[in-house]
Amino acid sequence: MVKVGIAGYGVIGQRLADGIQRQEDMQLIGVADVAPTLPVRALKESGMPYNLFCAVPDLVKNLEDADIPVSGMFEDLLSQVDVMLDASPGGVGAKNKELYIKHGVKSIFQGGEKDEIADVFFHGYANYEKGLNKNCLKLTSCNTTGLIRAVDSLDRAVGIEKIAITIIRRIADPGDTHRGAVDLLLMEPIPNHQAVDLMTIMPHVNATGLLVHTPVTHGHIITIVATPKKKVTKEQVIEEFKNHPMIRLVRIADGFNSNTSLFQYGRFLGNRRGDLYEIAVFEETIGFSGDDIMFAINIPQESVTIPESIDAVRACMGMQTDRIEAVGLTNKYLDMF
Amino acid sequence: MVKVGIAGYGVIGQRLADGIQRQEDMQLIGVADVAPTLPVRALKESGMPYNLFCAVPDLVKNLEDADIPVSGMFEDLLSQVDVMLDASPGGVGAKNKELYIKHGVKSIFQGGEKDEIADVFFHGYANYEKGLNKNCLKLTSCNTTGLIRAVDSLDRAVGIEKIAITIIRRIADPGDTHRGAVDLLLMEPIPNHQAVDLMTIMPHVNATGLLVHTPVTHGHIITIVATPKKKVTKEQVIEEFKNHPMIRLVRIADGFNSNTSLFQYGRFLGNRRGDLYEIAVFEETIGFSGDDIMFAINIPQESVTIPESIDAVRACMGMQTDRIEAVGLTNKYLDMF
Amino acid sequence: MVKVGIAGYGVIGQRLADGIQRQEDMQLIGVADVAPTLPVRALKESGMPYNLFCAVPDLVKNLEDADIPVSGMFEDLLSQVDVMLDASPGGVGAKNKELYIKHGVKSIFQGGEKDEIADVFFHGYANYEKGLNKNCLKLTSCNTTGLIRAVDSLDRAVGIEKIAITIIRRIADPGDTHRGAVDLLLMEPIPNHQAVDLMTIMPHVNATGLLVHTPVTHGHIITIVATPKKKVTKEQVIEEFKNHPMIRLVRIADGFNSNTSLFQYGRFLGNRRGDLYEIAVFEETIGFSGDDIMFAINIPQESVTIPESIDAVRACMGMQTDRIEAVGLTNKYLDMF
Amino acid sequence: MVKVGIAGYGVIGQRLADGIQRQEDMQLIGVADVAPTLPVRALKESGMPYNLFCAVPDLVKNLEDADIPVSGMFEDLLSQVDVMLDASPGGVGAKNKELYIKHGVKSIFQGGEKDEIADVFFHGYANYEKGLNKNCLKLTSCNTTGLIRAVDSLDRAVGIEKIAITIIRRIADPGDTHRGAVDLLLMEPIPNHQAVDLMTIMPHVNATGLLVHTPVTHGHIITIVATPKKKVTKEQVIEEFKNHPMIRLVRIADGFNSNTSLFQYGRFLGNRRGDLYEIAVFEETIGFSGDDIMFAINIPQESVTIPESIDAVRACMGMQTDRIEAVGLTNKYLDMF
Repeated sequence: MVKVGIAGYGVIGQRLADGIQRQEDMQLIGVADVAPTLPVRALKESGMPYNLFCAVPDLVKNLEDADIPVSGMFEDLLSQVDVMLDASPGGVGAKNKELYIKHGVKSIFQGGEKDEIADVFFHGYANYEKGLNKNCLKLTSCNTTGLIRAVDSLDRAVGIEKIAITIIRRIADPGDTHRGAVDLLLMEPIPNHQAVDLMTIMPHVNATGLLVHTPVTHGHIITIVATPKKKVTKEQVIEEFKNHPMIRLVRIADGFNSNTSLFQYGRFLGNRRGDLYEIAVFEETIGFSGDDIMFAINIPQESVTIPESIDAVRACMGMQTDRIEAVGLTNKYLDMF
Repeated sequence: MVKVGIAGYGVIGQRLADGIQRQEDMQLIGVADVAPTLPVRALKESGMPYNLFCAVPDLVKNLEDADIPVSGMFEDLLSQVDVMLDASPGGVGAKNKELYIKHGVKSIFQGGEKDEIADVFFHGYANYEKGLNKNCLKLTSCNTTGLIRAVDSLDRAVGIEKIAITIIRRIADPGDTHRGAVDLLLMEPIPNHQAVDLMTIMPHVNATGLLVHTPVTHGHIITIVATPKKKVTKEQVIEEFKNHPMIRLVRIADGFNSNTSLFQYGRFLGNRRGDLYEIAVFEETIGFSGDDIMFAINIPQESVTIPESIDAVRACMGMQTDRIEAVGLTNKYLDMF
Repeated sequence: MVKVGIAGYGVIGQRLADGIQRQEDMQLIGVADVAPTLPVRALKESGMPYNLFCAVPDLVKNLEDADIPVSGMFEDLLSQVDVMLDASPGGVGAKNKELYIKHGVKSIFQGGEKDEIADVFFHGYANYEKGLNKNCLKLTSCNTTGLIRAVDSLDRAVGIEKIAITIIRRIADPGDTHRGAVDLLLMEPIPNHQAVDLMTIMPHVNATGLLVHTPVTHGHIITIVATPKKKVTKEQVIEEFKNHPMIRLVRIADGFNSNTSLFQYGRFLGNRRGDLYEIAVFEETIGFSGDDIMFAINIPQESVTIPESIDAVRACMGMQTDRIEAVGLTNKYLDMF
Repeated sequence: MVKVGIAGYGVIGQRLADGIQRQEDMQLIGVADVAPTLPVRALKESGMPYNLFCAVPDLVKNLEDADIPVSGMFEDLLSQVDVMLDASPGGVGAKNKELYIKHGVKSIFQGGEKDEIADVFFHGYANYEKGLNKNCLKLTSCNTTGLIRAVDSLDRAVGIEKIAITIIRRIADPGDTHRGAVDLLLMEPIPNHQAVDLMTIMPHVNATGLLVHTPVTHGHIITIVATPKKKVTKEQVIEEFKNHPMIRLVRIADGFNSNTSLFQYGRFLGNRRGDLYEIAVFEETIGFSGDDIMFAINIPQESVTIPESIDAVRACMGMQTDRIEAVGLTNKYLDMF
């Protein structure tokens, strides 16, 4: 059993904890945070299903004042784990990494952390082998992770030469009060970082694109114009997406007509926190511009990176050497087939 | 075991099904709907935890074409139940009622249905006794149901003479595409129907108020100016709310600073669909205008009426004659103490 | 002086009236509407700068009851004009057209009307000659009109083979209460009608694209991937846009960072109703995907079609036979150079 | 002719400039700002109708680099004026005040500035006399200014004992990218500062209230429960509001059904920047809770404080000693009767 700890119990950290706990070949030792945030308060109200460690010893009083049970300090957690999944706020990870090294613990960072922190930019489907037995991996951001799933899927089938994407980005998460916008579409310059980041994982694809922030919270939409190396049919494209365990092919005509319809569907399924791990491809958006393939995907920003984060544990710990076997196990334990 | 059926498997119907299934002295026979909506598709994807009946026999082909397993037609369901919880779209209930009468089945309607449909306008806490052994009850709307909880609580403690409320209403549910608004606050005339409806349940209280629709989806906020019959202290008000099993007293300072923070907290707790049954009172909003009490509450519109709907089953079926015993059982099975 | 009437005094009709009145070689005889809407009430409060006719005689009482001065009925207006600009609600135009024919009046419809109503689908810049001396023209919708300006500009310079567009559409106009959405991105199938419509005006360009409705009101954003017939540089693209009188090249770095920043800029300029006639190209969004040009434009949906509508008057009345001369006059009178 | 300067050419500063320029007994010497913001760029594009001074000499290069004509530095402006209207960002005013004192110039600050900056908290209608010949006045915020108009109007007619208000606040201005929120209603503790501030101007009224931030940009809505000293009728209340030159009584039934409908109406009127100076009272929201009056008002946050700011010039410069005469002149020059 690989022993795992999680730093940061926010939007991503909570879901990493859920995901790790479902892996039968991993053991979640605990999660670390610094304040009685709502997720931490909910952890207590739920009866502490996960042990909580205080990530910054000086701040333990904040947790104690709120009557939150604390199982120990950050280094107590580090002394018990093989690998840390770090989902702490941007910038904090760099400091944490020094402690990970001190304790001989491997580490996996989320997309918000600086690139130079890690040995390898990692994606379970696209470059699993690159992460094998490395000490420190870094996931891509939610948009890039989902985008790579779709592009990698087509690339392995027919070869993709270049992509031009438009990211229609949710500007805040539900409940955010520190960011947001009202009645505007906020522009970013070309190229967006997601296209650039994709090329670090898939250097053989030429990628560029634009990003527009929109006042929504329930998922990003990306439109993709992909130039294939050989001509493909719509049926082939549909087939590739349909067969991918982490892509959900949906139809607008069936009611999957928005990012929020997918957010809601996760709730309708009774999934924990209402989460979906899959990106969605809207079937009726698949078409052609000349020979270029055009389609739109939905990215559930809160949960999309969880599977690839678990794949990263498998890679850096050398639990499986084969890509297909590794992602297959992750998915199996997440009930994704 | 009282046998219960549910008509309409939408926002409310899904949650009625969840709530009834948790009551150990009730049996959910099935739910009825007419089309392969997303909730119905999710029911299938989840392995049909609830039996589905086709509410309109002519429409069964729609369900069959979508490969949704159907356990029978609407009258098959009616022939097996003691009471129907009707959460079908507004206007449909009146037609359904004829069938309920034909089958000798009691019925309970949601707030969207016309008032004249029912023998009694019902609220578990405020007028349980009025519903005892009646054939047909009608719940109040989500806002009114939550509002009455708070006002009834104060009224039983100190007596309330009159209230003036401002409802800051969410204009759509998550995922709605048939209604909504962007960047506007939409006005309604005085008095709003919620104040008027409250007086049908609590005729001894003079109630009026305004309603403003706002472009949000995660819960209504109501501010209340309540004139008590005798002077009260802030501590008394807090105490009343704190002791109510269906009111959650929260603090802005703890992070409960918006309607959406409560929507999120239900997800953080891992509740099914992320639901909260309680209304919330924001502690820092409790104050006084002269001797009048002022405070603000949050109404989780998707789930707030579920407990009172279950109370209605208890009342009309005569399962408990005592109000406190009845709501206590409902709450116990919902894990609300 | 060409005599012009306007049917419908709503979002577009008001602005057509403003635009026509600024043309020194045209005379605005009046505008027609049927109800004391807010624009009509503002017309009265402003002292009736435009004569108002009642578009449906039976409804004149509504206007009279609101003390709105009425100069006559619809046919009174038709008897005095050479050409009608019809901006009445979708579907009404078809009935109006019968009256236009009866009175021997030419007519120009907006993009919302059915295609079959008109002899020619018209765009001032792209196919002015097609509209010459025709009896009935139809403009393209706001998005298509603005899009064609940009694509036509590049096409005349370097030749455009195909385009793949993503329309990030504002879902409602400011103040709309009959449509809107909250916290969702609503998907449309491929291809969007704007791409299809563009091909009716520019049949030599292969066009497709996706459309996503977003909860904003202050302008559409379109991202465009355009395949040129020969390789171009960024400088050439910038030069083309900079020289177009109806395209405003703006910089994100200067503060033009959203659709709303442009909406606001029109107000800052003190323009009537805060309107801008130009589409904007965000300079920092211009880039390349291989040899394909990528860029983003802003469409001010309320006012963008006004210049092309005035061009249509010039074309159908044969006021100018030369495209450049015609649009040049329209623009001059609108102070656009 | 009283010579006036304006510090800060943002949302408020632009409108102060417009308003002062319309006063025939005042002369606008110029406006001061520090950067080529969009309003400043629009000033240039409009041909510099107002002279621009650089508020911070060290920053003049920013303006020069953007080719903005600069008429001088801040102290050049101060040496030519009698009074400064300071609409610079919060906190900057305190530094500016030292320069105002140095130059013997009177000053008037907006509501965002700290209270202690001024000799008197000022409102044209409610306490004009307090501002007479003072050196430094401070306006109330937009919400408070509009609220006081309504409450003062009733108070002068029938006497107001206490008010309990709910402010449904727009969370950002159009185009703001540094603040905003999506799909949430953000709570503030009781009492809101607007109620407290009202009592500094109207100390004989007991005021409290709640404030909820909403994701809109086009005006605040306030609901008010006001306890009169003697019983009043709805007709009396309507009469008071109808006769107030700075209150617009509107009807929901006529289409004035939202904050945005009023924002739009200002555009429909062709007003500069689409501005309205009046608050609106929605006639159908006027009602009673017992003897308490309840009603709702709309606050156009961008422009509502302009008239009272001009009144402040009249007061501090001693231009008129009579309240009615002073506000009457301000209003006359603004075409408000």
